[in-house]
Amino acid sequence: MPMTSDAPPTAVAALDIGGTKMAACIATASGPLLRVVQPTLTSGTPDTIARQGLRLIDECCQQLQIDPAVLKSVGVSSCGPFEVRDGATGIIPPNLCGGLTNRDDLPNDWTFLPLESVLRERFSSVRSVRIANDCVAALHGERAFGIAPANAIYVTWSTGIGFGLCVDGHILHGKAGNAGHAGHMLLSETSQALCGCGNRGDLEGMVGGRNFGKHLGKSLELIFSDAQRGDVSALDAVHDAARWFGRALYNLTTILDTEAIFIGGSVWRHNETLLAPLVQREIGDRFPALTRGVTVQSTTLGELVTDMGAFALVMPAGWITDWRAHRPWETLRSVPLT
Amino acid sequence: MPMTSDAPPTAVAALDIGGTKMAACIATASGPLLRVVQPTLTSGTPDTIARQGLRLIDECCQQLQIDPAVLKSVGVSSCGPFEVRDGATGIIPPNLCGGLTNRDDLPNDWTFLPLESVLRERFSSVRSVRIANDCVAALHGERAFGIAPANAIYVTWSTGIGFGLCVDGHILHGKAGNAGHAGHMLLSETSQALCGCGNRGDLEGMVGGRNFGKHLGKSLELIFSDAQRGDVSALDAVHDAARWFGRALYNLTTILDTEAIFIGGSVWRHNETLLAPLVQREIGDRFPALTRGVTVQSTTLGELVTDMGAFALVMPAGWITDWRAHRPWETLRSVPLT
Repeated sequence: MPMTSDAPPTAVAALDIGGTKMAACIATASGPLLRVVQPTLTSGTPDTIARQGLRLIDECCQQLQIDPAVLKSVGVSSCGPFEVRDGATGIIPPNLCGGLTNRDDLPNDWTFLPLESVLRERFSSVRSVRIANDCVAALHGERAFGIAPANAIYVTWSTGIGFGLCVDGHILHGKAGNAGHAGHMLLSETSQALCGCGNRGDLEGMVGGRNFGKHLGKSLELIFSDAQRGDVSALDAVHDAARWFGRALYNLTTILDTEAIFIGGSVWRHNETLLAPLVQREIGDRFPALTRGVTVQSTTLGELVTDMGAFALVMPAGWITDWRAHRPWETLRSVPLT
Repeated sequence: MPMTSDAPPTAVAALDIGGTKMAACIATASGPLLRVVQPTLTSGTPDTIARQGLRLIDECCQQLQIDPAVLKSVGVSSCGPFEVRDGATGIIPPNLCGGLTNRDDLPNDWTFLPLESVLRERFSSVRSVRIANDCVAALHGERAFGIAPANAIYVTWSTGIGFGLCVDGHILHGKAGNAGHAGHMLLSETSQALCGCGNRGDLEGMVGGRNFGKHLGKSLELIFSDAQRGDVSALDAVHDAARWFGRALYNLTTILDTEAIFIGGSVWRHNETLLAPLVQREIGDRFPALTRGVTVQSTTLGELVTDMGAFALVMPAGWITDWRAHRPWETLRSVPLT
C-alpha cells in the first residue's frame, strides 16, 4: 500500500460489540493506535447499539485528532446470532434483546438490532462495512496475525461458548453469517441443563459459564481453585466439563477435518493448565484418521483477539506483514469511557 | 468449450469406488455415454483397487470404441477415510482393508490403498485427477446438476452415514479430504452401539444400516414394513432412528448455518415418506435463528448422484448448462461386468 507523503493517512476502524461492553479502535498502516471501551447500552431505540458504535469510533478519532472522514472502512466483531433483513445484517442477541427473553433486567423490548444499515450511513462504499460473529472475527485474527493453519477452529469458552471455523483456508460465514454456533450442538440426551436458546443438553447449556458446576452451588472461580487443591467434587465437575467440551471439539474435528484448535475466553484462560490435557485426551482417543496430530492451544492474541479480528476483516492486505512482525497490539492503549 | 470438428473429442472419466461395487463412466460434452459396474476386488496387492479402476475405464472406452488417450481427466468418488502419503491421496476404508479390522471375511491384510499415485501414472497433467469422498462428490453433483444452494448438506443414510458439506458456495475438503465424516459425531452418552470406527454412541453406530433396530432381531426391510402397518415396537425403532438422524442434521445446521439438506442412501430411499416428517420436526423445533426455513428433501439425482458428482469434479464448466437442460444421466446405460 504505497502512499505519497501528501496523501491523507489511510485509516480503518474496528468495532467489538459484546453483551456487556463495546470497544472501538482505529488503526493506520503502522498498527492500532487507540482503543476506547464502554459498557454496552441497553435502553432506547433498537438502533442504540449501532449508534453507540459510531459514537465510540468518533470519540477514538477525536482523542487521536484524526478526521473521521479519513476512515475507509469498519470491521465489526459482534455477539450474535445475526439476521439479514432487507439485505442488511442485524443482530438478535438474547443478552441484549429484552423482547426475546424473559430476563427482567433488560430495560428494553428489543427483538432486532439494525447494524449494517446504520453503519452504512457513514461507511457507504462497497465492502467498507464487514460484520462477523465475534468468534468468527477472532479466527480471522488468528489467521492474519497468529499461527492458525488453513483448517482450524477458534473457540471462546466463557459465559457462552462460540466458534469460528476455517476449512481449506476459507472462514465459514453461512446463510446469515451464523456459521460457528456450535455451542448449540446437542451432546447429551439426559442432561436437563437449559441453554438460553431453549435447548436442553447442548454444549453451552451444560458447560457454558452460566451453568457449569451449578449443582455445587459455588462460583466458577471457587470450583477451579478447589479442583486445583484436589477437592473431589470440584475435580469431578471440572473433568466432566472438560469431557463435554472435548467431545464437542472431537465432533467438529471429525465433521470438518481440521488440524488445529485455538481457545480463548475466561473459563479457559484462567484454568488452561487443568483443562488442556483433559480436552486433548477426549479428542485424541478417537478415530485416528481424523484426529491424529490435531493440536489444542490457547489463542496467540490474548484478550484482543476479537478486536484484531475485526481489523483483519477490512484492513489492507499490505499491512499484515508489518503488523505480524511488530505485534503492535501488544502495546495498544485502552481507554475506558463511562 | 468450442471445439473444431477436426479436434478429437474431449472426454472425461468418472470412477465411483464403493465397498461392494465399483463403477466407471465416460462422458463427452453431450453427456455420460456408458457406465460399467463390477464387484470391488478385495484380494491381491494394495494397488488392486486403483488398477481395477483403470481397467474399468479401459473397458468402458473399449465398449464405446474410444481411444483411452483422449481422456483428459478422471473424477473419483470413493469410500474413505482418506490418508495423504507423500503428497498423494490414498484410502483406508475399514470395509476393504483387512489389516485395519477384525473382519475375517476380507481376504487381505491391507492397511492403506494407494489411489492418486496409481491414477497419475495414466492421468499426469495438473488437476487431471480429483478425488473426493463419495458424499462430498455427491454434493458436487447436487450443486452442478441439482438445486443445492450455496449453503447445503448432502447425506447418505445407508449401511454407513456420510456427509458432504457446502458453506458459502465452497464444498468442504479438509486437511486430508475427510471433511464430512459427520456420521462419527457423538450424540449419545448412554448408547453402547459400537461403530466401525470404535466409537460408542455416534450417529452411524446407532442408526447406520448395520445397527439400526438390531435389538428387534429382524431385517431393516421388515422393521419398516411393520412400522408402516402400525406395529408399535417397529414404529418406536423408526421414530428413535429418525430422532437421532434429525438431531445430527440439527447439529450440522447450527454449526454451519446451512439452508438445505439433500438425502440419499438405501435406508432413506425406501422409507422417505415415513422418515421425512420426523426428521424435519427434529430440526425445526430448535433455535429458530438457525433453523427457520431449512428444507429437507431427497437427492434430485437418484442413485447416480455419486457418479455425477465424480464428473462434476473434473468436467469442463462449459458442459454443465447443457447437461442441466437435457439430464442425460436419466437415460444412461449401465453394464454389469463379472
